[in-house]
Amino acid sequence: MEVIRSMARMKGAAEEMRAKGVFGLVPTMGALHEGHLALIRRAKRECGGTVVSIFVNPIQFGPAEDFQSYPRPLEHDLSLCEREGVDLVFHPDPEEVFPQGYRTYAQVEGLSEILCGASRPTHFRGVATVVLKLFNIVTPHRAYFGEKDYQQLVIVRQLARDLNLPVEVVGVPTVRDEDGLALSSRNQYLSREERQSALSLCRGLLAAREAFRNGERRAEALEAAMRKEVEKPGIVVEYAQVVDPLDLHRLEQVTVRARAVIAARIGKARLIDNMLISEADETGSGEESR
Amino acid sequence: MEVIRSMARMKGAAEEMRAKGVFGLVPTMGALHEGHLALIRRAKRECGGTVVSIFVNPIQFGPAEDFQSYPRPLEHDLSLCEREGVDLVFHPDPEEVFPQGYRTYAQVEGLSEILCGASRPTHFRGVATVVLKLFNIVTPHRAYFGEKDYQQLVIVRQLARDLNLPVEVVGVPTVRDEDGLALSSRNQYLSREERQSALSLCRGLLAAREAFRNGERRAEALEAAMRKEVEKPGIVVEYAQVVDPLDLHRLEQVTVRARAVIAARIGKARLIDNMLISEADETGSGEESR
Repeated sequence: MEVIRSMARMKGAAEEMRAKGVFGLVPTMGALHEGHLALIRRAKRECGGTVVSIFVNPIQFGPAEDFQSYPRPLEHDLSLCEREGVDLVFHPDPEEVFPQGYRTYAQVEGLSEILCGASRPTHFRGVATVVLKLFNIVTPHRAYFGEKDYQQLVIVRQLARDLNLPVEVVGVPTVRDEDGLALSSRNQYLSREERQSALSLCRGLLAAREAFRNGERRAEALEAAMRKEVEKPGIVVEYAQVVDPLDLHRLEQVTVRARAVIAARIGKARLIDNMLISEADETGSGEESR
Repeated sequence: MEVIRSMARMKGAAEEMRAKGVFGLVPTMGALHEGHLALIRRAKRECGGTVVSIFVNPIQFGPAEDFQSYPRPLEHDLSLCEREGVDLVFHPDPEEVFPQGYRTYAQVEGLSEILCGASRPTHFRGVATVVLKLFNIVTPHRAYFGEKDYQQLVIVRQLARDLNLPVEVVGVPTVRDEDGLALSSRNQYLSREERQSALSLCRGLLAAREAFRNGERRAEALEAAMRKEVEKPGIVVEYAQVVDPLDLHRLEQVTVRARAVIAARIGKARLIDNMLISEADETGSGEESR
């Protein structure tokens, strides 16, 4: 497994990989967990070559956020990649990715200001920009993103479509711990008690799905079912909504497809989760893996 | 010469061209004049294949601007391209380039709000976005832009560098009429009298260059020399500045390199022009062609 730091060297290696056939990129910020490994395994199944990028993207963090403290267990991440049979890890230097005088940003309007974007106003601009740059440097045929960050997945799909990028964006179902907690690098910020509280997010989503299966179609009632589970001491709910899975707009009434999305702060952690509550959506996503 | 309208067909043709060697793109809005032909000839000299795009980009026009009335003499443009030996003209449908639900924009911050951006707040966002899309669809090795739209050239260079685009952006000197007027598709909006007034722009730039050659280094004095030529009845000067050719910041004192830039309204037309007033800049640009 090759580990590449320089962008020029990455471009050269990408050219060699493209010459050999279809290859996939799994963009990550490191601190890899089973959710990332599911992305890597899917890429390996579908592509001749697999590149994992590990880059804690400074421009997707707000000034008061956890950029400095975000976990960076590089050696462990590399050994996981090695074990999964990754061909190449791209781990660029932040100063090379965003040099002095950097000033260009991609913005997916209308999708970036809502939900998580309401409390993190420059977050998705940072995500869209770094993903666009990674696509241009690594030039993969396919790129794999977790459904756990559902808004991010929708935005990256739109970015690729709108900008005519020659990349197929693949969404991979959320991986959960046995107790239902969606895996996240930020779960390690939780104390044992907070982790217990955090289970409410998943319970809220399941409650909405249950209500839907029992025939409830009014979004307000579905959201109330969610809130009943999550509005508890120690949890600050940021949003709990039922949205269209394709464009994230808030539904009033569920007709065909619907996704429940939730964000909350627990202790030092800001956690998000989401779940398809209707039978199927049009994104090719089905049931979740555990 | 092939004329392609569909983006999918263009991507296929681009792949064939790339397989044959280096090819160049000349992005235009049509209404071709000798300035465009200079870009085409330069591309033909430097590249094995040459693509001209003709697309009046809706998103670079403000609501009160001349999008509807912008000249579109397609047959004439095609015959000029044919005569110049262009290999392929890409003339996409606006509804395919910007379909229903389009929402992604590229923004080069700090360079897009100044000079022309002050009166055209969404103009360079529209330019950067369409250029990025054209690069992704056509995938040229080199792309040719006129120095006449100097701010646009600086912004496109920065876009390509910041987003790691595999395109070399080439700036080509402004072509002028015998009397000095910089060629522009919008010159046809001018009456005979207005065209006479419009010569003041070029005269202002020459006055600044002359003052520089006579030893003047204070930007304020150089700008005063410009204004003396252009502040005349029937001309509304929008800006007349001396800037750094690399990042367009307004200079106080010229040390090494400087460009004079000017914009004015005359009748229905908004005209821009610019000129290198120092001996040489670091952009590889030299003297202007007439």
